[in-house]
Amino acid sequence: MPMLETYPAEINLDRGKLAAAIDALIACAEACTACADACLSEESVVDLTKCIRTNLDCADVCATTARVLSRHTGYDANISRALLDACAMVCKSCGDECGSHAEMHEHCRICADACRACEQTCRDLHSTIS
Amino acid sequence: MPMLETYPAEINLDRGKLAAAIDALIACAEACTACADACLSEESVVDLTKCIRTNLDCADVCATTARVLSRHTGYDANISRALLDACAMVCKSCGDECGSHAEMHEHCRICADACRACEQTCRDLHSTIS
Amino acid sequence: MPMLETYPAEINLDRGKLAAAIDALIACAEACTACADACLSEESVVDLTKCIRTNLDCADVCATTARVLSRHTGYDANISRALLDACAMVCKSCGDECGSHAEMHEHCRICADACRACEQTCRDLHSTIS
Amino acid sequence: MPMLETYPAEINLDRGKLAAAIDALIACAEACTACADACLSEESVVDLTKCIRTNLDCADVCATTARVLSRHTGYDANISRALLDACAMVCKSCGDECGSHAEMHEHCRICADACRACEQTCRDLHSTIS
Repeated sequence: MPMLETYPAEINLDRGKLAAAIDALIACAEACTACADACLSEESVVDLTKCIRTNLDCADVCATTARVLSRHTGYDANISRALLDACAMVCKSCGDECGSHAEMHEHCRICADACRACEQTCRDLHSTIS
Repeated sequence: MPMLETYPAEINLDRGKLAAAIDALIACAEACTACADACLSEESVVDLTKCIRTNLDCADVCATTARVLSRHTGYDANISRALLDACAMVCKSCGDECGSHAEMHEHCRICADACRACEQTCRDLHSTIS
Repeated sequence: MPMLETYPAEINLDRGKLAAAIDALIACAEACTACADACLSEESVVDLTKCIRTNLDCADVCATTARVLSRHTGYDANISRALLDACAMVCKSCGDECGSHAEMHEHCRICADACRACEQTCRDLHSTIS
Repeated sequence: MPMLETYPAEINLDRGKLAAAIDALIACAEACTACADACLSEESVVDLTKCIRTNLDCADVCATTARVLSRHTGYDANISRALLDACAMVCKSCGDECGSHAEMHEHCRICADACRACEQTCRDLHSTIS
């Protein structure tokens, strides 16, 4: 947020919602990376392979979306919208998958919360882009 | 492609179109990374800032899409479709931007070609996903 | 840090220093991505091309180092050490470069601080790896 | 390689070795991403968790090294050397790990070859940096 205020030109997005989205995306990417690795070390890894895969996808997509949203030079609303759509979908999918193991694995519970929070901030930001 | 044939379970996509898409995505990501840097070293960099930004976005989105498409465990058609949509849009945007400098900068010409080829293979693969 | 505590096996690193390093790496990656873009929108972009390049490198290396440090399964001390060495060097280089523009550009000042903090936590963690 | 030739300023590295290194890094990153996923779908996934982890690290480090080497603006030999060191070490580790499963899993055999080729080109390029 302090960084957003130093940008030397106009930003075509609600700065509060934008900062919230970038923070949530970064937190979700980190939670997914850690959850994938924690799943890999569970004795029941064979039952967690879909969870690991979805975590890896979600980490990659959130990290990329955070980067794109952190750039304001030559802004293109279509790209932001399309990526936020894809990212919200991946977060929903990962939140559902991790959520289904949340009672057994605390890392999945924490990760499901991060995914759902991220999905919501992506949709909030998307709704403000005309 | 040889790697695709070693996957120990079913792949829910046309393997030829999938291999073509992954190759095109990787080539496009690399072209965009190099084009951003070449633009940065042009004397006319001040006129190329939108091109650099779009190159950076396109490199990130193509690299992430290549990774997601390289995973088949726990396949989710909705995620592949959403990402291919977003990626085709970023490639079109970057292809148009680089294309507009193609006569002045050979790196932009090469990069525009990579973006357009990538956009096309993303759309081809998307059309096969039921 | 809450995520670290859910890891189902041993972690071969000081958990406090590890959590501090991952947080600093993620913050530095984000600062560098934003600073590169802010530099790109400055009228004096032609004087900031080395800064942009170093920012892009630092963002990539910090993001990768954060991911590697977030994995504990099949831990290999040599890899952690080598990456922390490379990352500290990139952070020092980027901190110096951004630091040299800190009085002119507030985004460079914030970014230089993030780079220096990250360099220090990388060295702190490195010193604990036997 | 055609892209390298369009760079509008001097490149402080042997262009042939540089192009070979970037190609090998990209091929290795893709092989490791695919091998991690193929391991995840093997029935014996519980015996392949270290392999998956090392594949994920190697994919991230090779992708980042390829990006850094694709930038020539504001070149810093120390950064290239440090990253090539770290990358060669990760490639060796991943090549050894995948190599130990090469007789059982064809994806590990292909990936081990990609890692070893990449390790070698990283060392070759490193040796030319004064």
